[in-house]
Amino acid sequence: MNFQYWNRRMETLPRDELEDYQLEALRVMVERALRTPFYSRELQKAGITGGASIKSLDDIRRIPFTTKHELREAYPYGMLSIPKEDIVRLHASSGTTGVPTTIYLSGEDIKRWTSFVARSIYATGCDKTDVFQNMITYGLFTGGLGFHYGAEEVGMLVIPSGPGNTAKQFQFMKDFGTTVLHATPSFLLHVESKMREEGVRREELRLKRAFAGAEPYSEDTRKRIEELLAIDVFNSYGLSEMNGPGVAFECQAKNGLHIWEDGYIAEIVNPDTLEPVAEGESGELVLTILCREATPILRYRTRDLTSFYTEPCSCGRTHRRLRRITGRSDDMLIINGVNLFPSQIEEVIMAIKEVGNNYLIQVEKEGALDRLTVKTEVGPDIFMDDARPLNALKEKIRRTLQATISISPRVELHESGTLPVSEGKAKRVIDTRPKDI
Amino acid sequence: MNFQYWNRRMETLPRDELEDYQLEALRVMVERALRTPFYSRELQKAGITGGASIKSLDDIRRIPFTTKHELREAYPYGMLSIPKEDIVRLHASSGTTGVPTTIYLSGEDIKRWTSFVARSIYATGCDKTDVFQNMITYGLFTGGLGFHYGAEEVGMLVIPSGPGNTAKQFQFMKDFGTTVLHATPSFLLHVESKMREEGVRREELRLKRAFAGAEPYSEDTRKRIEELLAIDVFNSYGLSEMNGPGVAFECQAKNGLHIWEDGYIAEIVNPDTLEPVAEGESGELVLTILCREATPILRYRTRDLTSFYTEPCSCGRTHRRLRRITGRSDDMLIINGVNLFPSQIEEVIMAIKEVGNNYLIQVEKEGALDRLTVKTEVGPDIFMDDARPLNALKEKIRRTLQATISISPRVELHESGTLPVSEGKAKRVIDTRPKDI
Repeated sequence: MNFQYWNRRMETLPRDELEDYQLEALRVMVERALRTPFYSRELQKAGITGGASIKSLDDIRRIPFTTKHELREAYPYGMLSIPKEDIVRLHASSGTTGVPTTIYLSGEDIKRWTSFVARSIYATGCDKTDVFQNMITYGLFTGGLGFHYGAEEVGMLVIPSGPGNTAKQFQFMKDFGTTVLHATPSFLLHVESKMREEGVRREELRLKRAFAGAEPYSEDTRKRIEELLAIDVFNSYGLSEMNGPGVAFECQAKNGLHIWEDGYIAEIVNPDTLEPVAEGESGELVLTILCREATPILRYRTRDLTSFYTEPCSCGRTHRRLRRITGRSDDMLIINGVNLFPSQIEEVIMAIKEVGNNYLIQVEKEGALDRLTVKTEVGPDIFMDDARPLNALKEKIRRTLQATISISPRVELHESGTLPVSEGKAKRVIDTRPKDI
Repeated sequence: MNFQYWNRRMETLPRDELEDYQLEALRVMVERALRTPFYSRELQKAGITGGASIKSLDDIRRIPFTTKHELREAYPYGMLSIPKEDIVRLHASSGTTGVPTTIYLSGEDIKRWTSFVARSIYATGCDKTDVFQNMITYGLFTGGLGFHYGAEEVGMLVIPSGPGNTAKQFQFMKDFGTTVLHATPSFLLHVESKMREEGVRREELRLKRAFAGAEPYSEDTRKRIEELLAIDVFNSYGLSEMNGPGVAFECQAKNGLHIWEDGYIAEIVNPDTLEPVAEGESGELVLTILCREATPILRYRTRDLTSFYTEPCSCGRTHRRLRRITGRSDDMLIINGVNLFPSQIEEVIMAIKEVGNNYLIQVEKEGALDRLTVKTEVGPDIFMDDARPLNALKEKIRRTLQATISISPRVELHESGTLPVSEGKAKRVIDTRPKDI
């Protein structure tokens, strides 16, 4: 394969030079952090009084972790390290508690963020001849503007379509020869269902690639989208606390996400002990941003579960690769004492080809017990009026799930296009059990 | 007043130099246009074979007009003058016919557009210390991204909130000390109504200015917003065919919109004869874009009705000022033979202080006659359960309207907050009369 690099020098920097770069950048970040109300308190408690307190990269472990809770506590300006008048943009994720998590960017921060997104897009083989349809929300959410700026930097033709309105999306794809899509994986599956419904054939389109992110999804979901649309799907990882998209991205080798280590220091820790896991083992991703001056965030506990690949990538990049995020530690369901991630269910059902493109997981109390129901749509070739094959399919799903997750769920089959569709992050789990206080 | 200039030299260029600049730029635009399928045909029919065919600015009259209909006919690539791979963005307005009007921009085009928006914003007295809440749709619509890029260029803190969700808008305004808003005038009025409803006092906020555009509005609406929010409201004019915002804008003198004549050539013509009107007279605005390479559009009939101020502005800018757009020639209603613009109704009712912030105009057939109904909300101090003052108010509105527009409308009063609100361009007129074919 003919690999291409947006910034060959930085992307292929030898590990020792990359680590020297990180150490230097970390010292700068510590200096910046000490200018914020939050870190000036927290770092000094830990005996860190300046960049010089950090002698080696291992010293990062002297820095206390930062959690989402603390970001909220610091709202609105506790994490700000530059004068307010030098801020050029803010992004905010509202969350469910009402207090937003807010990130500030300087003009320079936007440029650096944009360059990481451009690098990510280019690494998948895209260039200025591509037509990029950005089917994701613009505005306070970082996904829309983040990809928009990065794709413009690459020089692709950007269609800022946002999500929704599939009829119009198809019109753009046809009329402008869209080659690359960006959306949540659930919206990509929805688009594909709608295509069949509206008789749009993939041969009429010129799609080659899609970037899928903003929600965890399984390898089988990727394969399904790739086969149905005859495209390559690239895994995108980012979170608004770390700017948004452009934190880690798959290259043309499509085998794990390169985390851009000149922009971020990545650690993987055991979420219970907070100690580093052994190389290659799974744990919680902890990130320190190196490429932002306005809002320095150190050792941020992402809650995302992943692990490093240990072998180098065939593309020649020296930046390590993360495995597909299997879920957030917050997402874990405990069902009658059994730990379960929604991604485990997705993996099973998306591998069954009679199953359609949408599903929903419901957990409720039934007497003293938890009851798991998996609702899936059926594929377009299955007719809802013939009970026999439907019952066989239900039983197949139930048995396959039980074999994998050790829980026997109730299975419901729904007609294609009838389960609710979200334009942003899909809401896949409805848990109606009373919460413990 | 202490006027400030983003690009002092260009904004105060002596008229003769400005016109020399326009002539040179027009010649370049003609060359570019000749590279498009549409204009290579149309210009050659008119005997224009190159930039050299244009000897003086008056020669612009040799160029045929372009209409929205022709833009649609040319969809998707008939107006494109650069290789497809050099396009970096497209904007599209869908309109009602299904065929979008599409505008392409190169990277250079985006930079120049951004600089005109930055110039417009700066002309109102804003600078990098301001906090700018962009309460308008992002994406294919040009208003969101256009202002976003321009405000970032000025270095303001941009909150890309988009429209909707007033509770969240208020939270941002309070928490980040928003000083400048951008929205449609109807959404600004809606925001003000919601503030009172939710008990947000303007003293808690730090608002100083608002930019209002994307729909025509009256001077009385401006005054109402200014008084209720205790801010300055600046009139913004643009249209997606001419990039979007940044075509014409009010300066600190707040008395007419400077059209940036180094970016656009403006003519005002009689919409029937298509001949130029006398200086200062009202007619249809015709625009030629000088600041875009990808999609050159010459002598575009905007349908917007306006006139030039003849006297120079106190701010010292040499770029002529347009009067507030009174409506689009397409918007004109003919009611029982009487010509009427919705803006005339707005002007009357917004001057009546007991009238609330929202209104709707309905036209229907009643037998052979047209029947005009004006629905307005009542102000917050009027109680709907006391019939006498309500009847008096109704009669006052009816009489004042009749005196101005020579039609006696039916008047309906509605409780504050009950008429439909639009987040984008307000839909103020519902005309249910059968269309003549």
